[in-house]
Amino acid sequence: MELTGKNLIGNTESGKGEKLFEAKNPATQKEINPAYSNATEAEVGEAVFAAKKAFQGYKSKTKDERATFLDAIAENILELGDQLIQRCMEETALPEARLQGERGRTVNQLKMFASVVREGSWVDARIDTAIPDRQPIPKSDIRQMQIPLGPVGIFGASNFPLAFSVAGGDTASALAAGCPVVVKAHPLHPGTSELVGKAILKAANETGMPNGVFSLVQGISNDVGMAIVNHPEIKAIGFTGSFKGGKALFDAANQRETPIPVFAEMGSVNPVFILPGALKEKNDQIAKGLVGSVALGLGQFCTNPGLVITPDSDDSDKFLQNLKVHNADMPSGTMLSEQIKINYSKGIQNLNKSEGVTQLSTSSGDEAGNKVKTQIFSAKYEAFEKNNSLSEEVFGPSTLNVSTGSKNEMLQLAENLYGHLTATIQGTKEDLNEYSELVAILEQKVGRLIFNGFPTGVEVCHSMVHGGPFPATTAPQSTSVGTAAIKRFSRPVCYQDFPQSVLPDSLKDSNPLSIWRMVNGEIRKK
Amino acid sequence: MELTGKNLIGNTESGKGEKLFEAKNPATQKEINPAYSNATEAEVGEAVFAAKKAFQGYKSKTKDERATFLDAIAENILELGDQLIQRCMEETALPEARLQGERGRTVNQLKMFASVVREGSWVDARIDTAIPDRQPIPKSDIRQMQIPLGPVGIFGASNFPLAFSVAGGDTASALAAGCPVVVKAHPLHPGTSELVGKAILKAANETGMPNGVFSLVQGISNDVGMAIVNHPEIKAIGFTGSFKGGKALFDAANQRETPIPVFAEMGSVNPVFILPGALKEKNDQIAKGLVGSVALGLGQFCTNPGLVITPDSDDSDKFLQNLKVHNADMPSGTMLSEQIKINYSKGIQNLNKSEGVTQLSTSSGDEAGNKVKTQIFSAKYEAFEKNNSLSEEVFGPSTLNVSTGSKNEMLQLAENLYGHLTATIQGTKEDLNEYSELVAILEQKVGRLIFNGFPTGVEVCHSMVHGGPFPATTAPQSTSVGTAAIKRFSRPVCYQDFPQSVLPDSLKDSNPLSIWRMVNGEIRKK
Repeated sequence: MELTGKNLIGNTESGKGEKLFEAKNPATQKEINPAYSNATEAEVGEAVFAAKKAFQGYKSKTKDERATFLDAIAENILELGDQLIQRCMEETALPEARLQGERGRTVNQLKMFASVVREGSWVDARIDTAIPDRQPIPKSDIRQMQIPLGPVGIFGASNFPLAFSVAGGDTASALAAGCPVVVKAHPLHPGTSELVGKAILKAANETGMPNGVFSLVQGISNDVGMAIVNHPEIKAIGFTGSFKGGKALFDAANQRETPIPVFAEMGSVNPVFILPGALKEKNDQIAKGLVGSVALGLGQFCTNPGLVITPDSDDSDKFLQNLKVHNADMPSGTMLSEQIKINYSKGIQNLNKSEGVTQLSTSSGDEAGNKVKTQIFSAKYEAFEKNNSLSEEVFGPSTLNVSTGSKNEMLQLAENLYGHLTATIQGTKEDLNEYSELVAILEQKVGRLIFNGFPTGVEVCHSMVHGGPFPATTAPQSTSVGTAAIKRFSRPVCYQDFPQSVLPDSLKDSNPLSIWRMVNGEIRKK
Repeated sequence: MELTGKNLIGNTESGKGEKLFEAKNPATQKEINPAYSNATEAEVGEAVFAAKKAFQGYKSKTKDERATFLDAIAENILELGDQLIQRCMEETALPEARLQGERGRTVNQLKMFASVVREGSWVDARIDTAIPDRQPIPKSDIRQMQIPLGPVGIFGASNFPLAFSVAGGDTASALAAGCPVVVKAHPLHPGTSELVGKAILKAANETGMPNGVFSLVQGISNDVGMAIVNHPEIKAIGFTGSFKGGKALFDAANQRETPIPVFAEMGSVNPVFILPGALKEKNDQIAKGLVGSVALGLGQFCTNPGLVITPDSDDSDKFLQNLKVHNADMPSGTMLSEQIKINYSKGIQNLNKSEGVTQLSTSSGDEAGNKVKTQIFSAKYEAFEKNNSLSEEVFGPSTLNVSTGSKNEMLQLAENLYGHLTATIQGTKEDLNEYSELVAILEQKVGRLIFNGFPTGVEVCHSMVHGGPFPATTAPQSTSVGTAAIKRFSRPVCYQDFPQSVLPDSLKDSNPLSIWRMVNGEIRKK
């Protein structure tokens, strides 16, 4: 497939903007053809207008039709074959195996949402039947279900060019819910985005979806994103990226004449608490696993563990030594862009110059171009609590070990945490009994609690929560990964005393879709 | 029970503020003892601090304990007996039968949430079991459930002194979710609020709930509400009231260092569409029902029908005549306060002076004191579409009939609507076929669609949606009435690879609470 550098406004290729930009190979710093056209406000408007026009038709599709569309997207992404992987490697410097894995995840995610739609119970159908002779007034027949919000704006992420980008979890869940989608491609991988965008459009055409159900706009300037969030016909936003970016969208969305929800996942520091028993029993094993988790994907994951809390002891001294040993052999690697390396370097500089913070270890390898090394720092509790900047995310392969002088200090540190995506506890069963308050505190701080594992690796399943209190996200009551992510793009509506013929199939007496429903308070499928 | 005029900070009565205010009998304009103490910022802080302190203990209560607490509140409200009804009548001028009915609704609502908590499935438990030998990487055991957000601030409403106030749906659903509650009493009925507040505290003490699980602060100045919404330990807001009030809370909440969700139900105009067949067949019946719905409770309901859309025809002329006839005998009545009457009068003046708007009918009776009459206006489609102010809510017993010259005009009017709580369609089956687009358009505009009924009367049940797109609410993805309202005050959290002994009961393998769960994608109770 030849890349055009154009925006995809439904089925129309459009490049009206005068501003052009090119992707850059992070490994070679060379620009990659073709140049991409920064979408104009008018083009964004056309994409949203097409989405609005498509909405009535799209939401009227049967659940099987919608599921078939999602499956077709998955097939068409696979059909892009090696071109997709090669282009993506060029644009991101991510290794081939990682991108193949990410493609698999993206495809499985689409199929998972297809199966959720096909099964149908996600609409949370609720039926309360009438009691015409109830005293003092008759009871009406009332039936509730989830319906799609309308056109959704979705922002591709830099760090997951496939799984959190054009056909990633946000797009898959919004399309699954019945919402047309306008994606803003991440400017670090416009070519990858165009390829995937075309796979989606091909699927839409093959499966008879209305033109406008999907559009892709390209953009390197903030205006493009702001035009999406400020468009009155956009009903919700999905975003994965930096705190600054997510918060700017959140603020803009709330200042609209009609505010809209923003589901922004803005990353976090993902504290790992290592309790005394575990530190004694599995010192080296935990150190090895932790360094691997910190270095994985060069730390360019939302769930990268940037903070490790240990109880100060001989075991913790040994642990720091073990971290050093395991980090020594880590190779350096190329980050996603020059700017990301610059920001990482700034974060490292800040750690280096912070009072009471010691640089414990630097991995091996060179730092040419956009290459960076894995860095490990340590500090005492007092130094950490005195300096707010030490709680901030450093996007990249670094972590800070904080040793606490007592159980109380560890609990206090937990109590002072902002919202995070995850928190991890490494402990024995005895540790858990001894530190039961820690679990209770951390529950209030995160979306996912991990026991004796590491936070990197987000399973795509029914039970996953990839979310958490602000500032990890702007929407702590939701998840952006897993089947529950579909709920972000729907809202409940109820029908009072509607004739059977006019009710949606999900709410008809005969349950023609054979879904789970709550009927007069009872969960059943009949 | 003697009223004290104090704030109830958990079990402590507190009246530190120098500013005092009294309730006023809307019928006599006389002040009612005792004077109430406007809460200080420090008192609000104490209430929130007590709530935070109570949180860990409260959320650890078993579901049966929490349900027993809710049931006890219901019993204790009934136990207040006639004192509650008499005080409420004095403060609101609402009729005795209405308040007895509202008390019944309040009590049933508490019992309903008790049964939801006792049943337990509302936590949406999801379990994905581990697959240790999965390739290329093992699958972890992941389990998700809803947990309470933390201390919640709730604002009592003027128009439902019981059902949407101190122990109303917001408080009942927040307590049911496991959140401590700080209520800001509405200044129009502080005595009613104190009585109900004490009933809640008595229930908390009787059932062993921690001190601070409930507090009640009094206030006539906006500072009190702002101190609640701006307090860092408040995690969500529930509100029923005016657009101005709800929007101010929403804006403040979003501008906090850590934004929080605001579930504000801000009323709406609740359009009623009368289709040609129904207008022919049931002209007089619909006119009678509509006037009754407009006049009910002097129009002081969020779901009061303030806009009626009819197709222009001989039948609609007859309909206007019928409205006149039925309105003629409506008695006048006393509104909730002088300010509410002033605002109503302004709204009526605006209608009267608007180009193309005709005053069709005024009900009978006098307008002494805070008494008002039911007023009906009519306009043509063109005049309505030209003047935005005609789409705004007039809080009180008035409605505006807009006649449309064609089906297209009616659909266009629907398409141009802002968000509302409800929309009503009066029609025959043939009308519904003919106007199927109307249903599709209105679904996007409201939370509840009513067929051949009237919007007043909100059934408290599993399927109710009392909500809708902005500006009807600030949280279109939720409902403030019905069992689904509990979801507003919880968020999902997941546990990865946790030992059975540490998992919450809702997520243990043995399903000790016997709740419905999703296990590896299947809904089941085993």
